[in-house]
Amino acid sequence: MIGTEIEHLIKLLSRLPGLGPRSSRRAVLHLLKNRESLMQPLAQALGKAAEIIEECPQCHNMDTVSPCSICANPRRDASLLCIVEDISDLWAIEKTGSFRGYYHVLGGTLSALDGIGPEDLSIPHLLQRARDPGVKEVIVALNATIDGQTTAHYLSDCLKFCGVAITQLAHGVPIGGQIDYMDDGTLFTAIKFRTAV
Amino acid sequence: MIGTEIEHLIKLLSRLPGLGPRSSRRAVLHLLKNRESLMQPLAQALGKAAEIIEECPQCHNMDTVSPCSICANPRRDASLLCIVEDISDLWAIEKTGSFRGYYHVLGGTLSALDGIGPEDLSIPHLLQRARDPGVKEVIVALNATIDGQTTAHYLSDCLKFCGVAITQLAHGVPIGGQIDYMDDGTLFTAIKFRTAV
Repeated sequence: MIGTEIEHLIKLLSRLPGLGPRSSRRAVLHLLKNRESLMQPLAQALGKAAEIIEECPQCHNMDTVSPCSICANPRRDASLLCIVEDISDLWAIEKTGSFRGYYHVLGGTLSALDGIGPEDLSIPHLLQRARDPGVKEVIVALNATIDGQTTAHYLSDCLKFCGVAITQLAHGVPIGGQIDYMDDGTLFTAIKFRTAV
Repeated sequence: MIGTEIEHLIKLLSRLPGLGPRSSRRAVLHLLKNRESLMQPLAQALGKAAEIIEECPQCHNMDTVSPCSICANPRRDASLLCIVEDISDLWAIEKTGSFRGYYHVLGGTLSALDGIGPEDLSIPHLLQRARDPGVKEVIVALNATIDGQTTAHYLSDCLKFCGVAITQLAHGVPIGGQIDYMDDGTLFTAIKFRTAV
């Protein structure tokens, strides 16, 4: 008989992606053993973040300030707009430090099966932003999945009339990748779009 | 540039066992998207648990009440005492519903290498409990690892003088286990301690 408070905590934690019932139990035990150094700070950080973090009305990123710290940064390149599916993609690109423009988070991909149309994503808002005369290039950085590429095609069609250059991420063999482990699609693309040395 | 509050939250979460930096980022995003249904309840549950949960002075389990709800239950069998390494083992045995006695959590195993001696675990307290005339049998339910079995040997030697029967968990092929996947040690034990059908 585990205490109901502990059971409740295990149940809540097991709803996080990547944590099942067994790993939540382990996590709760670890928390209980590190009450002052981890459990209380985590409780406070969660409570504070839940209170103050909000969606950026411009790019749909989440941040403690609104507009978010990326949109509020005047030193970024306003001629570049990068479209991503999810905030996690924005974080991943931002971590590389290679992109200095602004973002637009769609919040998902189009899906006829799940009944997700352009209005359910932030596509109308995107088209409005892309029509800004300052924007010169829109990078469609969607996942190389079927849903992602379908959405990318749809976006390219819409963006044609906004008077911007439309680009996409390069596809090919990932850095560190071994050729004999690559799938046919990746290898086909890598050969087709080979570059001069 | 991710907000510092979010970075802080990711860092705290990544200190949980089973969560690395990437999975903590995913978990934080999931939390941010489910702020009212998951993030706030989790913050409250963590804060509350950190405040009210304490170690049971009798068995060293953790619970919201002290002594814990197992030790406080008078309908359990006081003649049986089950020794486990960690609270997670207690939870695992309790979940089977097959044990109705009381527990004693050691809090680890003896380790000459790490300088962990009997006084660092709750072994003196265990011997004191085992000398209670009501206790008839002590089940040594330690892990079947080298450290666990070394500790079990040491405990058996100490418990000899407490006038109790000393038992251990049965070893053999686990339920659902396939013989040709078993290691030699398990099979050897399973054949040696074969039982009548």
